Amino acid sequence: MGDYEHLLVKQDGDTVRITMNRPERRNTLTESHMRELLHAFETAGRSDATGIVLAGEGKAFSAGHDFADVAARDLAGVRDLLQLCTRLMRTIESVPQVVIARVHAIATAAGCQLVASCDLAVAGESASFAIPGGKGGWFCHTPAVPVARNVGRKRLMEMAFTGDAIDAHTAAEWGLINYAVPDAELDARVDELLARATRGSRFAKGVGKQTLYAQLDRPEADAYAIALEVMASMSQTPGAKEGMAAFLEKRRPVWPD
Amino acid sequence: MGDYEHLLVKQDGDTVRITMNRPERRNTLTESHMRELLHAFETAGRSDATGIVLAGEGKAFSAGHDFADVAARDLAGVRDLLQLCTRLMRTIESVPQVVIARVHAIATAAGCQLVASCDLAVAGESASFAIPGGKGGWFCHTPAVPVARNVGRKRLMEMAFTGDAIDAHTAAEWGLINYAVPDAELDARVDELLARATRGSRFAKGVGKQTLYAQLDRPEADAYAIALEVMASMSQTPGAKEGMAAFLEKRRPVWPD
Amino acid sequence: MGDYEHLLVKQDGDTVRITMNRPERRNTLTESHMRELLHAFETAGRSDATGIVLAGEGKAFSAGHDFADVAARDLAGVRDLLQLCTRLMRTIESVPQVVIARVHAIATAAGCQLVASCDLAVAGESASFAIPGGKGGWFCHTPAVPVARNVGRKRLMEMAFTGDAIDAHTAAEWGLINYAVPDAELDARVDELLARATRGSRFAKGVGKQTLYAQLDRPEADAYAIALEVMASMSQTPGAKEGMAAFLEKRRPVWPD
Repeated sequence: MGDYEHLLVKQDGDTVRITMNRPERRNTLTESHMRELLHAFETAGRSDATGIVLAGEGKAFSAGHDFADVAARDLAGVRDLLQLCTRLMRTIESVPQVVIARVHAIATAAGCQLVASCDLAVAGESASFAIPGGKGGWFCHTPAVPVARNVGRKRLMEMAFTGDAIDAHTAAEWGLINYAVPDAELDARVDELLARATRGSRFAKGVGKQTLYAQLDRPEADAYAIALEVMASMSQTPGAKEGMAAFLEKRRPVWPD
Repeated sequence: MGDYEHLLVKQDGDTVRITMNRPERRNTLTESHMRELLHAFETAGRSDATGIVLAGEGKAFSAGHDFADVAARDLAGVRDLLQLCTRLMRTIESVPQVVIARVHAIATAAGCQLVASCDLAVAGESASFAIPGGKGGWFCHTPAVPVARNVGRKRLMEMAFTGDAIDAHTAAEWGLINYAVPDAELDARVDELLARATRGSRFAKGVGKQTLYAQLDRPEADAYAIALEVMASMSQTPGAKEGMAAFLEKRRPVWPD
Repeated sequence: MGDYEHLLVKQDGDTVRITMNRPERRNTLTESHMRELLHAFETAGRSDATGIVLAGEGKAFSAGHDFADVAARDLAGVRDLLQLCTRLMRTIESVPQVVIARVHAIATAAGCQLVASCDLAVAGESASFAIPGGKGGWFCHTPAVPVARNVGRKRLMEMAFTGDAIDAHTAAEWGLINYAVPDAELDARVDELLARATRGSRFAKGVGKQTLYAQLDRPEADAYAIALEVMASMSQTPGAKEGMAAFLEKRRPVWPD
């Protein structure tokens, strides 16, 4: 699928597998790498796939921004790069597919932000996670946005200030990922979770995902205002009608999408 | 207390016990069932009780909305049903009593939302929790609102997308309930936690609860603006004066309410 | 450093150690005690220190407000006291230094709020934590603000309604503190965590901390809007330039601040 310099992208049944494939650069998020990722997610988002797996080749899942790509930029240039990065992260949250990170190795800075921005994440036991900007001269300001929305406040502060990596089991305990699994089982566990997460009406699930992100981090009354109107509207779709009819008639549903 | 078709409601000392008693329908939240629950909570809310226990009879705590009640409705009809449901959930958060869910069996969809909306929850080990709409043709949009405010983001996504049930121990670990306990100890543990949670001035605790829900999910400065004004005002009440006087005089307080 | 009646304050290398030293009053937060703490944090905030340790002497870390100081006040007087208290808590979050609570014993009410307001917290195993107002005649309205932003909703409700203390291991599990450690190792573990948390550019880390608190508890789009602009601006600072150059040149950075 597509013609990418830095990525391997293939559709495998209902799943699009996007693999960062620039191991010699530790899958750093250069501008060109992010443009390809954005394009791949936008393309997958418009496809009929139900799930997307984000993976990486080589010794790192992703090492975040490439300082060689940042250091020479002026303010406007860095701002453009961060706008692109934020657009990538929010596109992952915005596509109707369930997006799962398959994390086999270290994910740092914007690489950790990628994991935090995926809907689901499964990591091998040898993976680790860090937002290390705070022990340098800059700071992981934007990576901390989705990390803060996955882990508790004290743990966010520890990660952001120390910059030290946490292991996969700690990441699972803190809620940054769903599961830490033996490395040898990583692919099987990713596929198993994705299969469970992509059942049902594709259309209904896509709207469901988008509505979840819309209602998060808001006062509960505001969240209900959003969720209620969407849920009422969606009750009239063919998928909802079919789901309820099949349940009441004790038969398997046939999704219209 | 009251004359209900679907509920058993009784006052037991300072506690109102509301038990969903339509086991043949798995305590589904039909319109009439929700109207009764709303009435029962509003009535208990105006009573002098200090605590409310929400329980269910039969093989399920509650199976959520009844598709037979939903499938025939047009948009306006479903919207009315969801408005009623949301009003029920927010009434549970709004009554001055401490509300505790006693969960003995599966709680799904709006049934899981009930648990998430109670202030406290204790479940027997054979209980389980699911928001399964996402594996069908609709989606648990509104149940996800309070569930998202009890568990972390990755765990919310797993529950909402897979639709699979989590067991009571997992629910306790993720923060959806307070405790998973042996089934045989469920009533004792519910009563023990409720007894600890309902000590002190009834009036002060009711305002305390309402202020907690008002300040949650807001930027900290906004939350402080709310909490500070309430706390200052409440310092002048007879209960606060009595509490401080009793503490300073090393005697037991006598609450004026 | 400074001339305090209730505090011991000393600078120890890059660390300012602020110790509440009114053990005979269990380090209660009287108006004069809070004025001293506020002054000490503001002074340390303007210093070249990179970290601040908040500790307490005696049988309690801090027992919160002193009812003898509250009971005689009218509404305006209590409001002033709570404004001062809130200003103290938010100053802890606002100073550019990493602030770590060293909790050796019980921290209750506004004493627990102090722990929740510090960026990081390490507690000895004999420490405990409570917001007990709810079992009296008032309520821990303002202490619940930062506690709610550290622990999950069901756990907040349990702490706020029961008023009972949780032990250090539970506090670590719930995210109220970072680590529960053997009492004998408390100082070593505090210093070890603080050392890891204060590496790098002092200036960049201070802005990093302040930006974290600015973006928390907001919808993600709003949080990104804040974090992105700060991160772009900060890319042009001497510290960021030096950090990236040192990384690319494989040498140790020399921070300009």
